[in-house]
Amino acid sequence: MKKYLITGFSGFVGQHFLEYLENRGQACLVKGLDIHEPCFGFDHLKNVIVRFEIIDLLSKDRVEYIIHDFQPDYILHLASFSSVAFSWKEPIASFINNTNILLNLLEVVRKSNLPVRILSVGSSDEYGNGNEKYLSLTEDMPLKPVSPYAVSRVSQELLSQIYVTGYGLNIVMTRSFNHIGPYQNDIFVIPSFVRQLVKLKKEGIENTELITGDISIIRDFTDVRDVVSAYYQLLMQGEKGEIYNVCSGKGWALQEVIDIICGMLNMKVCIRLDTKLFRPDDNKIVIGSNEKLKKTINWDARYSLKQSLQDMIRDWEGRI
Amino acid sequence: MKKYLITGFSGFVGQHFLEYLENRGQACLVKGLDIHEPCFGFDHLKNVIVRFEIIDLLSKDRVEYIIHDFQPDYILHLASFSSVAFSWKEPIASFINNTNILLNLLEVVRKSNLPVRILSVGSSDEYGNGNEKYLSLTEDMPLKPVSPYAVSRVSQELLSQIYVTGYGLNIVMTRSFNHIGPYQNDIFVIPSFVRQLVKLKKEGIENTELITGDISIIRDFTDVRDVVSAYYQLLMQGEKGEIYNVCSGKGWALQEVIDIICGMLNMKVCIRLDTKLFRPDDNKIVIGSNEKLKKTINWDARYSLKQSLQDMIRDWEGRI
Repeated sequence: MKKYLITGFSGFVGQHFLEYLENRGQACLVKGLDIHEPCFGFDHLKNVIVRFEIIDLLSKDRVEYIIHDFQPDYILHLASFSSVAFSWKEPIASFINNTNILLNLLEVVRKSNLPVRILSVGSSDEYGNGNEKYLSLTEDMPLKPVSPYAVSRVSQELLSQIYVTGYGLNIVMTRSFNHIGPYQNDIFVIPSFVRQLVKLKKEGIENTELITGDISIIRDFTDVRDVVSAYYQLLMQGEKGEIYNVCSGKGWALQEVIDIICGMLNMKVCIRLDTKLFRPDDNKIVIGSNEKLKKTINWDARYSLKQSLQDMIRDWEGRI
Repeated sequence: MKKYLITGFSGFVGQHFLEYLENRGQACLVKGLDIHEPCFGFDHLKNVIVRFEIIDLLSKDRVEYIIHDFQPDYILHLASFSSVAFSWKEPIASFINNTNILLNLLEVVRKSNLPVRILSVGSSDEYGNGNEKYLSLTEDMPLKPVSPYAVSRVSQELLSQIYVTGYGLNIVMTRSFNHIGPYQNDIFVIPSFVRQLVKLKKEGIENTELITGDISIIRDFTDVRDVVSAYYQLLMQGEKGEIYNVCSGKGWALQEVIDIICGMLNMKVCIRLDTKLFRPDDNKIVIGSNEKLKKTINWDARYSLKQSLQDMIRDWEGRI
């Protein structure tokens, strides 16, 4: 039975990856690690046996014990402090976490000589600003990170590459673009829109005001179920030492997304821009190329933006 | 009186920077910080008043106290774990030190709102491999670090840039190439050659064998006295947020350097190559462009390689 170690298990990507494994129909073992308890259950799963453990991944001794004990075939490294805003407030905490937990994992694997395959998940934020002239970001473009979070991601990626070339570890890396889907926390922009609009609809308010940041910005959204499918296949077939954009390849303005949600809910909203919500360093357009990903694995985005939003509306209708 | 805080004070660059300040003839205060005691004195200096303190720069509280107490006008940040070999043995220690001590310094400065000017010293190792086709490395070339040490330096530079653009700190950065000169530790290649040859000469052995790594590699050597002059002038006139190569712009094969030393000592040596001393990832040629440096400050390398080697020989003759 194959064994998967998943860091950052309790997040919404972890939850979907678990569903993905369950739906594959093959028995497997998962060891989930996170600093927080998951808010989802896993006792109902038939094919996946899950053991979960609360852990601070900065504790190297504990990481070492777990990896030696569990002997994973695959590590899906999702854990990170992923908020750009937090990284501006606490740059040291953000940087240290995102680099040191990776280093702890990689050092334990290096010293144990375990033939484990690792997927290290990075971010489209690594591209940063200055690439606006390109309509589609490719993996060979220069990285110009513009936040402490983005720098931590670039450092994570450079360290991963060193562990491949210098120590021979079997690591595949991603630069993952925005993803959306059911179960997502509403600290992110799209689920925040969906939650607010579903709530207003439930309260019978169909003509209202929505306070937003800059909704002219264009982003590349991928459904989380497509993302976890890419992660699984990259774990199986990605080329060691290579970096892959995980993205839909299509751009949507936030304004368009709001229009689609309103259309589905049969609502009308008046947008009120709050400049305090504008991010000074935001790129106007961030769209990735998924050509390299498609060439390597048998993957394509199956969920349209509309499908994702429909499922998110249903999810929030059940939650509110 | 201008106040300089110097981290990594006890190294040979610190020692030469102190001499540079003394020779400028203007009274100033220096607070030297290092984890090791310096092996040089400073009581004889007439223009520079030095206070030295042993400190682990990972101790943020201590860094905070010192900066608040000393209120420096300038920070020369030299402290680092600078051995590539060590970084391969202890990648976590190397990376954490080189990034976290910088973060500690920058966070204290950011929170104190002190209008201090900072020079963050980086390394030509940041360029890494893959730029061999260029005879002269310029600051806009892509960085392809190939050791944990080099990754830590790239991360340090990216973090410095974030503190300039995101928080407005007044930082200038360098990528410093190999430097040589009197007082240098013989863990580095050139002083190691000089020490061995001076010792053999003293012992009356004029025809002998020298065990070396790959001496066909070409490096850009700058005299440390030219380096500290560049550092001083960059602290004064470097452009905030900019990165400068500090280098001579000229390449010398290690073989040529050995020949010059032997000529000066009137010796003949037979080279025996030890492949264990070869570094697998070494670039054959590393030569930097100092055009940007020269355009910004009134600087040129004043010490020829021969002058540097002559002075190093004299230094080692006094030491052995």
